[in-house]
Amino acid sequence: MVGLSTDHLKRRGIMLVLSSPSGAGKTSIAKAILARDGNIAPSVSVTTREQRPGETDGEDYHFISRDAFQNLVRQGQLLEYAEVFGNFYGTPRAPVDSALRDGRDLIFDIDWQGARQLTENARDDLVTVFILPPRAEDLERRLMTRAQDTADTIQRRMAKAPDELSHYPEYDYVVVNNDFETSVVQVMAILHAERQRRQRFVGLAQFIRGMQEQVRAKYPGGELM
Amino acid sequence: MVGLSTDHLKRRGIMLVLSSPSGAGKTSIAKAILARDGNIAPSVSVTTREQRPGETDGEDYHFISRDAFQNLVRQGQLLEYAEVFGNFYGTPRAPVDSALRDGRDLIFDIDWQGARQLTENARDDLVTVFILPPRAEDLERRLMTRAQDTADTIQRRMAKAPDELSHYPEYDYVVVNNDFETSVVQVMAILHAERQRRQRFVGLAQFIRGMQEQVRAKYPGGELM
Repeated sequence: MVGLSTDHLKRRGIMLVLSSPSGAGKTSIAKAILARDGNIAPSVSVTTREQRPGETDGEDYHFISRDAFQNLVRQGQLLEYAEVFGNFYGTPRAPVDSALRDGRDLIFDIDWQGARQLTENARDDLVTVFILPPRAEDLERRLMTRAQDTADTIQRRMAKAPDELSHYPEYDYVVVNNDFETSVVQVMAILHAERQRRQRFVGLAQFIRGMQEQVRAKYPGGELM
Repeated sequence: MVGLSTDHLKRRGIMLVLSSPSGAGKTSIAKAILARDGNIAPSVSVTTREQRPGETDGEDYHFISRDAFQNLVRQGQLLEYAEVFGNFYGTPRAPVDSALRDGRDLIFDIDWQGARQLTENARDDLVTVFILPPRAEDLERRLMTRAQDTADTIQRRMAKAPDELSHYPEYDYVVVNNDFETSVVQVMAILHAERQRRQRFVGLAQFIRGMQEQVRAKYPGGELM
């Protein structure tokens, strides 16, 4: 028998969504995944807010005008979008489509509203993970120790947590962030497992058919058994 | 805030099913998973066939009479069963139920007919993996080099392979066994990921509600946002 190789067996990329209440450790986990896995990249959003010092256009965000943003919305070019404090943020469809077709995975660090819109627009490519703090006081402690937030912001984020928590049933996986390293390993396992999902393979039917034909040519009679 | 601990957060066990054409390496992969993971055990079948030298009752199989087997079938006590060369084999329901309730995982090394019956009887607990050889000749080579089979058996197994292969669309995951170690790691990732599936958690709703109540007591006003 002459071998049909696995070279033609490709897979479609994954959209890995991480959501959690503020302070559960989602962003640190996302960064660790990006650092450890060479085939996953962050999804770069478009936004209408001002570029800040230190930010790179096309890397942190694609900075665009409100008119350009409205056009993307009208043309159905955004997989999800939201307004936050008067600025618009959204996920452009084209770069996501092209990454998935090439078998490259994307990570999304978004809230339940964003995750819900992505689910409506791209269910089959989506893998959603909800990160939970082990205890309520861990949320509070993390928000306080990261020191980037004012007391007011911490108050607002904590007050929002119960609502954010109520959306866990919309997610595929749950990771309780008891220990950072364990959580990273668990999310990596989810990513690796999801890459083996049957539906993500491209060319599998043809690969199997080729194998069946080879075997039948050399070992006939299987149909009679 | 006083911590609600994760102690009450349990999870239900998983039924991990591996299927493949004979010679794809499924049994070696199952053995490696059992050796590396302390929380998974083989499912022990009941059978009407004679106990062979070296086999332990209750470990390799539960050896039972044909009458006892028929009773299990009649009482709906088998999750799947089959007749092979005049002997009956089946998976008893009670030990599976008890393992899953205790959060222990079970591995099943069965063919597509068995997997299909398990799917009908226990879909939510099932995780199914189809192991593929990288090339048709790898099947043949493995069957030939394991030397336990006569030329006749090899002929029969190879003739059966195309039919077995045709059932890959009934499985959740596909692993192409190009390299044994990679395949084991991929199946381990599937096992680890599936343990984080939201539906497997027991007590999650209560855990979340407790956390929401704690946060609301200290940070009221979230409902208004």
